[in-house]
Amino acid sequence: MTNQLDQLAINTIRTLSADVVRKANSGHPGAPMGCAPMAHVLFSSFIVANPSNPKWPNRDRFVLSNGHGCALQYVLLHLLGYNMTMSDLKAFRQSDSKTPGHPESHLTEGIEVTTGPLGQGLAMAEAHLESRFNKPGYELFSNCTYVIAGDGCLQEGIASEAASLAGHLRLGKLIVFYDDNHISIDGDTELSFTEDVLKRFESYGWHTQFVKDGDNDLAGITQAVVNARNVKDKPSIIKIRTTIGIGSKDQGTEKVHGSPLKPDDIAQIKKTFGFDPEKHFYVPDSVSARAESRWNKLLEDYGIEYPEESAEIKRRFANKLPEDWTDHLPRYTPSDPSVATRKLSENVLNKICDVLPELIGGSADLTGSNLTRWKSAGEFQADSTGIGTYSGRYIRYGVREHGMAGMMNGMTAYGGLIPFGGTFLNFISYALGSVRLAALSSFRVIYVLTHDSIGLGEDGPTHQPIETLASLRALPNILVLRPADGNEVSGAYLAAIQNLQRPSAISLTRQNVPHLEGSSIEKTLLGAYVLKEVKDANITLVATGSEVSIIVDTAKLLEKEGIKARIVSFPSFELFDEQSLEYRLSVFPDGIPVLSVEALSTFGWLKYAHANFGMTTFGTSGPYKEVYQKYGFTPENIADKAKKTIEFYKGHTLVSVVQKPF
Amino acid sequence: MTNQLDQLAINTIRTLSADVVRKANSGHPGAPMGCAPMAHVLFSSFIVANPSNPKWPNRDRFVLSNGHGCALQYVLLHLLGYNMTMSDLKAFRQSDSKTPGHPESHLTEGIEVTTGPLGQGLAMAEAHLESRFNKPGYELFSNCTYVIAGDGCLQEGIASEAASLAGHLRLGKLIVFYDDNHISIDGDTELSFTEDVLKRFESYGWHTQFVKDGDNDLAGITQAVVNARNVKDKPSIIKIRTTIGIGSKDQGTEKVHGSPLKPDDIAQIKKTFGFDPEKHFYVPDSVSARAESRWNKLLEDYGIEYPEESAEIKRRFANKLPEDWTDHLPRYTPSDPSVATRKLSENVLNKICDVLPELIGGSADLTGSNLTRWKSAGEFQADSTGIGTYSGRYIRYGVREHGMAGMMNGMTAYGGLIPFGGTFLNFISYALGSVRLAALSSFRVIYVLTHDSIGLGEDGPTHQPIETLASLRALPNILVLRPADGNEVSGAYLAAIQNLQRPSAISLTRQNVPHLEGSSIEKTLLGAYVLKEVKDANITLVATGSEVSIIVDTAKLLEKEGIKARIVSFPSFELFDEQSLEYRLSVFPDGIPVLSVEALSTFGWLKYAHANFGMTTFGTSGPYKEVYQKYGFTPENIADKAKKTIEFYKGHTLVSVVQKPF
Repeated sequence: MTNQLDQLAINTIRTLSADVVRKANSGHPGAPMGCAPMAHVLFSSFIVANPSNPKWPNRDRFVLSNGHGCALQYVLLHLLGYNMTMSDLKAFRQSDSKTPGHPESHLTEGIEVTTGPLGQGLAMAEAHLESRFNKPGYELFSNCTYVIAGDGCLQEGIASEAASLAGHLRLGKLIVFYDDNHISIDGDTELSFTEDVLKRFESYGWHTQFVKDGDNDLAGITQAVVNARNVKDKPSIIKIRTTIGIGSKDQGTEKVHGSPLKPDDIAQIKKTFGFDPEKHFYVPDSVSARAESRWNKLLEDYGIEYPEESAEIKRRFANKLPEDWTDHLPRYTPSDPSVATRKLSENVLNKICDVLPELIGGSADLTGSNLTRWKSAGEFQADSTGIGTYSGRYIRYGVREHGMAGMMNGMTAYGGLIPFGGTFLNFISYALGSVRLAALSSFRVIYVLTHDSIGLGEDGPTHQPIETLASLRALPNILVLRPADGNEVSGAYLAAIQNLQRPSAISLTRQNVPHLEGSSIEKTLLGAYVLKEVKDANITLVATGSEVSIIVDTAKLLEKEGIKARIVSFPSFELFDEQSLEYRLSVFPDGIPVLSVEALSTFGWLKYAHANFGMTTFGTSGPYKEVYQKYGFTPENIADKAKKTIEFYKGHTLVSVVQKPF
Repeated sequence: MTNQLDQLAINTIRTLSADVVRKANSGHPGAPMGCAPMAHVLFSSFIVANPSNPKWPNRDRFVLSNGHGCALQYVLLHLLGYNMTMSDLKAFRQSDSKTPGHPESHLTEGIEVTTGPLGQGLAMAEAHLESRFNKPGYELFSNCTYVIAGDGCLQEGIASEAASLAGHLRLGKLIVFYDDNHISIDGDTELSFTEDVLKRFESYGWHTQFVKDGDNDLAGITQAVVNARNVKDKPSIIKIRTTIGIGSKDQGTEKVHGSPLKPDDIAQIKKTFGFDPEKHFYVPDSVSARAESRWNKLLEDYGIEYPEESAEIKRRFANKLPEDWTDHLPRYTPSDPSVATRKLSENVLNKICDVLPELIGGSADLTGSNLTRWKSAGEFQADSTGIGTYSGRYIRYGVREHGMAGMMNGMTAYGGLIPFGGTFLNFISYALGSVRLAALSSFRVIYVLTHDSIGLGEDGPTHQPIETLASLRALPNILVLRPADGNEVSGAYLAAIQNLQRPSAISLTRQNVPHLEGSSIEKTLLGAYVLKEVKDANITLVATGSEVSIIVDTAKLLEKEGIKARIVSFPSFELFDEQSLEYRLSVFPDGIPVLSVEALSTFGWLKYAHANFGMTTFGTSGPYKEVYQKYGFTPENIADKAKKTIEFYKGHTLVSVVQKPF
């Protein structure tokens, strides 16, 4: 049964959403109008949060998976008293507004995650922190994650990956509303989407419910949420049949999906709804604020009884790192034995995971290859499985790279955690949709990407990355790190963990590499540094990762012929670009030609070197030394390229690659 | 019941696979040994193909989705009499062998598709060609597609996307064996994969069966395939419980997954199987050859009754294009009205889809935005739905970009078709796993990628590509085309369709662009060309797509200040790189600085220009003209950058960007 006040609130959301989209002359009115009842029930009866402090840790999380319907979210934030004014709404989809075309968490308070994929990571984070910190009488972490998802969301592969794992992990505090409106952009879902969604989620181990009349049956929606909350050991999906763009003359069709409604249509909608366009949403701000102040009192009492845990919660949610954690990063000298950088990454994890309890992570079913499991790691699993607990920090993501990256975003959005995830460098391509959102959202997550070149050998070209690092380097706001030895691997983790506002991708070898004379953790943070300086040099050789030791040998060969080569190790383009011009010129001085060497695509390398040696084709299956030989990654061949480069630039006035016209 | 000969054949596969992996000292013995019974049943009783002509059109297709188990496939090819010798097997995973670490269709006869994702596209192709060409009495196209897939395959999102659509499309000739061995790399599937797979496939509309003892129950496997073949209106999945690495001392554990078995283990396996390592696989080559010769006779008779259709089949399977089809490509002059290049792409499809019946395609639920539907298009749907037929050529892929790209690969592998698929440029990132396989496999597929820059406007940075073209350009063996106007759009389609051996990505605007003075279809094929030549030029301006008309205006501004600018339009890096040095020098002569302009990442552009203007951050929501203004894509700002570039290089001896030391 719908009372009058509920109906008024719902119609407010509907008409305001239509107005917002109309004003922008761009956007999606249909979903906000159709989802208004479920959103109203959720926010008026269930969601506990504090508009005056949108970052309160134990707030319930709300994720609008079908981000194109964000007019709904902006209208809700406005009505609920968040920092979202009527003029913000009027600036919908305009430059520099806080109401962009799709929701962006770094721009707008109250938006938990940017757009798209399902937010399972948030529920994982809650389960972990609840298990780690809650004590008898202290339910510090108890929030739910609510998601509205549309037909389109559920067609995407990432949703399947995340839903399968959420079911496996028995994440009882995840509740998904499936807005079953039978319409996608192309028209009726009968064109391409006729599966039985609830049966599919049952197969994943979810609790499922169906509300037939999602346009009117508020009591039904309410009861379904109550039921879902009572099911503690399964995530829930509630399929809610709605009418997209309800009230419009075109309701229930794809016409209301992605274009503003016509003014006369909006007028008749308002008339139909007997509508007064004032503010009527009636969740008093104070109820939510009381919830937070009760929680703050709880945390205070908890702190008396559990001072260490309390300090840790506060530290972690303030994004502070423990003092002196960096002392635990391993350091090496050239006399240490050669070892693969993936193994050096394991060494780092073994040292720092105990010092940084906020680190949580695993691998997309490549644990033994990525070497992501540290010695003391516990399994993150539902207690009832008997194979782990939610307080464990080792995540078995399964063969689900895209889902893994999405979950890492969700855990970061929740707060108090630094998630990492491992796969082969080549397969981060499966996850780029979520990697991009991490970069756009300024989320600190760490991708541990092993088997990072043709040097992986026998698995062959289906597994050998060529273009992958170029893809990541072309993406804004991500650190891409390809360390050359032990000190640089430690430096890469230091950079990744210190950089609060961006994701990091650490590219690691399968094959062994020696520890270099002159490398250090501190120099790694400069992005590039001179490993070996020579007076009156004829050429600068620059390389990353496993190719640095090859150019060291190249320089020795050249020396025998009287050719002087400087050597630069270049673990990160992005970190180097942030150094002063003076420093950058000291690494790449005017007048000396630069030759770069990397066993990956040369694409993009001209930014730092006049000539580039690398891969321009796919690789081949074979033992790695043979493969390196085949494609010319040998000191002999690179010495030849160096001589050609010197010859070519003879007589030229060469400006440093770091000098640019603008 | 297993007879002795069957058992011998199965054990041959098992021991030979173990030997092959052992010899390479690298690879995956477990799956080949576990899947030997199902593979034996399939190849001895069901699959009709011709080892002497692996490309016979109506052969049954076999796809090993879990490509790491390819030792199985190589052993089968050897035993079946394909061009695969014992010494090929011994060269497993070695450089330049035809037995690479994962199966590659372009290297090895008898391999239908390279590695990984499920092969639904093959079944779609069969349904379409059957519906298009079969006539009463002439079952020219009737083959089945058989797939073996493991736990890992079914965890990936792309498998969900493909399986959901295959169910929707009721593809009765697709039969998937699910090798249910309970083991993935990390260990038991209880770690991360506990869903009810058959229930999930039921929810997609599949026919499901379970064979409990896949190690021994050959009769059960056989009966299941018979049942599956009898279900004509649903794809089938047969879950077959197997023991990974059966026979090994470590059978049934992850230890046999990805490392060779120890020699003494192999010895005891052979002993257990009472084994004589000779060739015993008993499918006589002649049975299969007879099937093809019957089919050839059928095609001959068909040709008498249906000469046109017969000629078309022959033409299409020979990868020939109809004569004079290029006459249908639209041509424009500068007096034609400005229009978005996505609309110009629609114009091309309207013209050529009727002339090229092998074109088949659609959009990932963005038909009205990608404009991929031509006027005469029929819906590709199961007849029983009443909304289309399999002879239709318009595919509703749904919001499944990765699945779409995988299906396009499958259709190409089948033959006789040129598939295309549309989405926003930004969302091709979701599909890169399959795009990469298309490039590696040399498959001609066409990605129609609209909304190709910040110029899409209000949808904002979640939808505005920045790094995307750089990702594609860094990938080997793909044509990336960003046409600037009507003639270049026609040229882009010409290049895409003429290039049999690689995929093409066509990047198209949402916003209108004018038709340029001096553009042509023919020049587009050169990759880059001089749109406007000037004597004694001070600078060359180069741009792609929507930015070409901006540099045309920039040149006019500069001219007023006495600065002479040449203008180069640059639709494709790859096509340009293939031109003679002489031609390339005519486009970028020595001595003139080059400034590039593209409203996407500048990453990689130094290859063709001394200075680059583009995007280095994410974009913003807003009307497109405001967004272009905000980021400086205006003639005024670019003129300023041009002057800085000229100033910077004053007095330098500038060599052309196309001159390289090696």
